[in-house]
Amino acid sequence: MLIEFLMETIQYNLPQSRIPLAWYNIAADLPKPMAPPLHPGTLKPIGPDDLAPLFPMGLIMQEVSTEREIEIPGEVRQLYAQWRPSPLFRARRLEKALDTPAHIYYKYEGVSPAGSHKLNTAVAQVYYNKKEGTKHISTETGAGQWGSAVAMACAFFGLDCKVYMVRVSYDQKPYRRALMEAFGASVTASPSNETESGRAILKAHPDSNGSLGIAISEAVEIAAMDPHTKYALGSVLNHVLLHQTVIGLEAIEQMELADDDPDVIIACAGGGSNFAGLAMPYLGRKIKGQSKARVIAVEPAACPSMTKGKFVYDFGDTGHLTPLVKMHTLGSTFVPPGIHAGGLRYHGMAPLVSHVLDLGLAEATTVQQLDAFAAGIQFARAEGIIPAPEANHAVAEAIAEAVRAKEEGKQRTILFSLSGHGHFDMQSYIAYQAGKLENYEYPEEEIAMALAGLPAVG
Amino acid sequence: MLIEFLMETIQYNLPQSRIPLAWYNIAADLPKPMAPPLHPGTLKPIGPDDLAPLFPMGLIMQEVSTEREIEIPGEVRQLYAQWRPSPLFRARRLEKALDTPAHIYYKYEGVSPAGSHKLNTAVAQVYYNKKEGTKHISTETGAGQWGSAVAMACAFFGLDCKVYMVRVSYDQKPYRRALMEAFGASVTASPSNETESGRAILKAHPDSNGSLGIAISEAVEIAAMDPHTKYALGSVLNHVLLHQTVIGLEAIEQMELADDDPDVIIACAGGGSNFAGLAMPYLGRKIKGQSKARVIAVEPAACPSMTKGKFVYDFGDTGHLTPLVKMHTLGSTFVPPGIHAGGLRYHGMAPLVSHVLDLGLAEATTVQQLDAFAAGIQFARAEGIIPAPEANHAVAEAIAEAVRAKEEGKQRTILFSLSGHGHFDMQSYIAYQAGKLENYEYPEEEIAMALAGLPAVG
Repeated sequence: MLIEFLMETIQYNLPQSRIPLAWYNIAADLPKPMAPPLHPGTLKPIGPDDLAPLFPMGLIMQEVSTEREIEIPGEVRQLYAQWRPSPLFRARRLEKALDTPAHIYYKYEGVSPAGSHKLNTAVAQVYYNKKEGTKHISTETGAGQWGSAVAMACAFFGLDCKVYMVRVSYDQKPYRRALMEAFGASVTASPSNETESGRAILKAHPDSNGSLGIAISEAVEIAAMDPHTKYALGSVLNHVLLHQTVIGLEAIEQMELADDDPDVIIACAGGGSNFAGLAMPYLGRKIKGQSKARVIAVEPAACPSMTKGKFVYDFGDTGHLTPLVKMHTLGSTFVPPGIHAGGLRYHGMAPLVSHVLDLGLAEATTVQQLDAFAAGIQFARAEGIIPAPEANHAVAEAIAEAVRAKEEGKQRTILFSLSGHGHFDMQSYIAYQAGKLENYEYPEEEIAMALAGLPAVG
Repeated sequence: MLIEFLMETIQYNLPQSRIPLAWYNIAADLPKPMAPPLHPGTLKPIGPDDLAPLFPMGLIMQEVSTEREIEIPGEVRQLYAQWRPSPLFRARRLEKALDTPAHIYYKYEGVSPAGSHKLNTAVAQVYYNKKEGTKHISTETGAGQWGSAVAMACAFFGLDCKVYMVRVSYDQKPYRRALMEAFGASVTASPSNETESGRAILKAHPDSNGSLGIAISEAVEIAAMDPHTKYALGSVLNHVLLHQTVIGLEAIEQMELADDDPDVIIACAGGGSNFAGLAMPYLGRKIKGQSKARVIAVEPAACPSMTKGKFVYDFGDTGHLTPLVKMHTLGSTFVPPGIHAGGLRYHGMAPLVSHVLDLGLAEATTVQQLDAFAAGIQFARAEGIIPAPEANHAVAEAIAEAVRAKEEGKQRTILFSLSGHGHFDMQSYIAYQAGKLENYEYPEEEIAMALAGLPAVG
């Protein structure tokens, strides 16, 4: 007879039946509504019809909805079951390595076959497009996580997929490109000669490394020109953030399984969807007085939209094809330094995330590139999983919080989002370990210039 | 009130408490014992002491044990909980794509942070080494899966790790190397100038691509020379196969959850540990009359040890430093063609797997390289997961079996091992999609030469 050794629980997992039935829409619970997006010509609030050339109506209605619960279609839940509910880990080995009294939990989205949280919204977006007859999806990708997710979702639903990939990633990440191509997507380096936006940039800067803002312009442009092509965005918009709330909804149940309650909730934020996914369901509870957790969005020091940007109306893209949205921004013409967390290189922050920061429901902090990678290596050696460079920012802040807990001699429960693995980002770890990465100072002058060019609105 | 859409179950998962308490040792149930390993000098059966320079006694005793259940130490089970029990998927989307009446299940070992089944034995081996005072582990890696697993296990237990990586992989797979280095391992291309075995090969073939057989010689040589250094092997040996039986033990429970029973069990086999991991617990039931499943080991057409080799005594390595073992072999001097499933490029097959094939308990088949990759792409587009090139061999056979079921109009339950993901093998997919891969004919002449050089034993 074998006696069972008393084990510590590592994963708090839910069965397939606990995949949420509905996404959570915090708009229903906000103490003050968000500022509306404006038409860049008229400066009047835009309506659903203004967005119709780019998105299917199912998504547009979610974009403007104030319903608290938005039902997840059965087909989307069925696809979620390929990887959801995602695991919640207690980082016991990391806690021991840090010798901290803090409890550290992480919600791990890297189990998605695309390797990150991005697939949560990609399958939803492609589903609504398919339902309304869209044949082709155009999109952009920086780090490659979003492009991989859209390529995969299009393969699942049988739609064509066109990805504009930021030039520097296109060159640095051939494996990412190969993954998208394995799923049948067509991948083009951006800026490209295929669009007016791309050609304009190439004319001024023939060697442009590209940026997310430029790639967005290209993908939007080709969608606007063809009625069978729609555009898919991987972050920033309300409906994208909405789809990610499955992360936080599951985490709330899993933390109950663990019989623990987070004092601090941490997630990295580039466009804001990963942060919103974990945070919004908790912020809904906070608004209702059911949670006192500090909620922290972490951004790179090199691209500090939340901590150094202005909360004003700006364009979502460099080519100024999008509506004007009120958000924390560094200026839509600002091209962030070439940090290795490509998913965090965006000049703005989701209007919804900006709004909850402005309301004081959440706070923001920055992490330097070298600290992020050092944290990632420390995490990997304890927990095994090698995080994506973006996720390293959350890891660094979680470790810093656990160290503070030790210094103060106080227990504290930390929950963070490990939004993806770094399997396709190993060139960044190679560069880090070879001592080739650097920290970036706040790019003050460029940001001042970009902010000076902001449209005078609101 | 939201109504739940009737979902099909995709994953059949077990809680942490169902991680097996013991590994299953089929030696206890074999109708005929295996031929013993022989000392290459005396040609007499070797004893535990002969292996002591290379392995800790805890592993040596497992190597020769005939106990049916060997308890998994609590610390090893605790580490297993970082990723185990691994999921069992029903490949419903693939079934629909194939329009087959077959039920297809896969046991997915890619959830291990090392990305494959290899971590199951790596943590066990490093645990026993740590317990007996080993300071350094030396090993070899071909595809990189084994090296990654050992590097990770050494980081978990605080041991130094030295990996001899087959030259062609070292050059082709910088991400794999980076992963091992992120976990603190020292990685050297093999053949190297660090060992006599390596120098001998380099003298004869200065541009040698290396092979698993050569890299094993190098790793064994440095372990034999230093009392604080032990050697770890990722396949072939009984104790390695034993550790992998957690795969099959969990799968048996999970198939019960699914209320289904496999008619066909499929796994790829290079050294044999992945195959043994899934198959041995089922073969134990087959011996007792509790299962009638066909059990199929799949090998590459370019390195067909089971289907074209001889079942005779041979060396495990190219440098002839190991004992002689009775196995299916293509000859220890045979260097397999440079197929992209590096983990299947081994001249021999585990003695235990060879023995169950010889007893007629299992059968073997081959898959060509292009068919393997085509199957991998088809699988990925349906299921999302992009398989390791090795695992593609099992995918191809599972698909072929499902297609036969359709042609015969018969239901059939297929269970296969998806031993790892292909995230670190995307250069192979790039080459495949660019049309640069080829099939290999059975390398008849080279194998005849290598077999002619076999030692005359038994």
